[in-house]
Amino acid sequence: MPDKSLRIRRARPERAGRRPIMLAIAGDSAAGKTTLARGLEEALGPGRCVSLCTDDYHRYDRAERKDLPFTALHPDCNHVGIMEQHLQLLATGEPVLKPVYDHATGELVRPELVEPADVVIVEGLLPLYSKPARACFDVTVFLDPPEEIRRGWKVQRDCAKRGYTPEQVLAELERREPESAAHIRPQRRHADLVVRFAPIESRDDPAGTPLSATVMLRPTIPHPDLSAVLQPGLTRAMHLKLERDPDGRPAESLHVHGYVPREESLAVEKAIWAELGDPGGGAPESLGRLGDARSEPLAIAQLLILFHLMELDR
Amino acid sequence: MPDKSLRIRRARPERAGRRPIMLAIAGDSAAGKTTLARGLEEALGPGRCVSLCTDDYHRYDRAERKDLPFTALHPDCNHVGIMEQHLQLLATGEPVLKPVYDHATGELVRPELVEPADVVIVEGLLPLYSKPARACFDVTVFLDPPEEIRRGWKVQRDCAKRGYTPEQVLAELERREPESAAHIRPQRRHADLVVRFAPIESRDDPAGTPLSATVMLRPTIPHPDLSAVLQPGLTRAMHLKLERDPDGRPAESLHVHGYVPREESLAVEKAIWAELGDPGGGAPESLGRLGDARSEPLAIAQLLILFHLMELDR
Repeated sequence: MPDKSLRIRRARPERAGRRPIMLAIAGDSAAGKTTLARGLEEALGPGRCVSLCTDDYHRYDRAERKDLPFTALHPDCNHVGIMEQHLQLLATGEPVLKPVYDHATGELVRPELVEPADVVIVEGLLPLYSKPARACFDVTVFLDPPEEIRRGWKVQRDCAKRGYTPEQVLAELERREPESAAHIRPQRRHADLVVRFAPIESRDDPAGTPLSATVMLRPTIPHPDLSAVLQPGLTRAMHLKLERDPDGRPAESLHVHGYVPREESLAVEKAIWAELGDPGGGAPESLGRLGDARSEPLAIAQLLILFHLMELDR
Repeated sequence: MPDKSLRIRRARPERAGRRPIMLAIAGDSAAGKTTLARGLEEALGPGRCVSLCTDDYHRYDRAERKDLPFTALHPDCNHVGIMEQHLQLLATGEPVLKPVYDHATGELVRPELVEPADVVIVEGLLPLYSKPARACFDVTVFLDPPEEIRRGWKVQRDCAKRGYTPEQVLAELERREPESAAHIRPQRRHADLVVRFAPIESRDDPAGTPLSATVMLRPTIPHPDLSAVLQPGLTRAMHLKLERDPDGRPAESLHVHGYVPREESLAVEKAIWAELGDPGGGAPESLGRLGDARSEPLAIAQLLILFHLMELDR
């Protein structure tokens, strides 16, 4: 018998396509993953970017999950092995036939073809869960809002878009908490950027003040040098700070203040955009979009991620 | 940026499992693929064997196909690239999340996990269509009944099991004929075994006589040595013949006669089974099963394939 592996490799057609830049956006349910991703997708343009949600890899549909001892957050409730395989294929420039989970009906439906573009954005509950999955990414982000903020977002979304009552959503959050703690939140430590939208605790801002953002930049990948833009005293809109991560590792922390008037934030945004090599036309309009409103802290966080997607030396 | 390919390879867990033996059974619609495969599956036992149909890789469902200029037989009507990818993954011992086409409803539904067993049987319209797909197989079979026999089988099956009228089936056969000629029948030349069930033209057997089988054994893989069992004059049940393939290549042809009384065929079947190294208990009961009836020619064809699945030196 001939060496079949060799035969398979030789029969495989040469791929002309480049390997895509792979971005992971991990975080708990309703942590803001889709909002963050949407602005990046639009900034890159549909032709250059393809998005994928790892929640599509649910192993069981909603009806089947009712009788199971775990929730959709649990790795055993997901085809983690297939998710890893598909991420590896996409990372090496191959298409995949991705499963599809319909959040509206809770059913698993017909799969769809995903062909890698220049950038592949992967968001979901578990993209950084396992080592084989993490190995596929060039840039990894974890969304880390305070739990009370996330609860509010989840109640709002699941009632408006998925037909639940607030009581149902809160009960589900309660049921999921041990699995969030065990499987979702530990992914935070594997992120190159940890993004946290929250009010500033030391201030007593009136209701309606936009949330501020803290973007922790871990030295696991080379971040843009913002020291010139963010010299002390130059702006109230944001500042850089050397901090220890809760697990003790050193990191840079960018604090973006939501209470600052928009013009002031926009000026810094423009300066950062120029510092990042401004490909012309100014920072994309889609950054910071929050429904019909706009959040400068969100725009800044997206800008820092966009840097890696546009500049990455492959 | 670190070498991501290396990182991905290093992060991949070591597979304990062996690479499976891959068998392809190709042929046109209603050529007898499932009947042939079923007997082999049962002979191997469910734990040792997993089956997969490449028709599940249809790109469009039945409703969508109505408006297309080709039929389900056309490669463009199928995710051929994904089929190749999945065959490669299975051939190297990896699981796949296989799409599912529901023949009853004509819909593409929830995919299913397929984990490779010792033997993977792949049947369908297009498994030998492309070089990357063919590279995945250890043994390849093409089912080649005369067209008028296949038409009869297709009318019978599609009316009984898929709710069509005979007129509809014949019209569909007409519509498919150019694509059968262009894409399905050319796969015959890539098969190690070509199996043809047909009446013997030179005889005038009464209606109801079981079909005979011609099994062409191409020297592309090492077939069992049947010369001892099939010495001239030893049996009327079958004989070996050196022949030229229609495309000119030399091949061995085993002619199994359907008109011979069952006991005579069974004796030769036993002798072949012994020649193949008889793992005990005699040839599996499941071989030759044809609905509620039994066909010795089918059993012999299956036995010759089974040899490769049980004995192959990997």
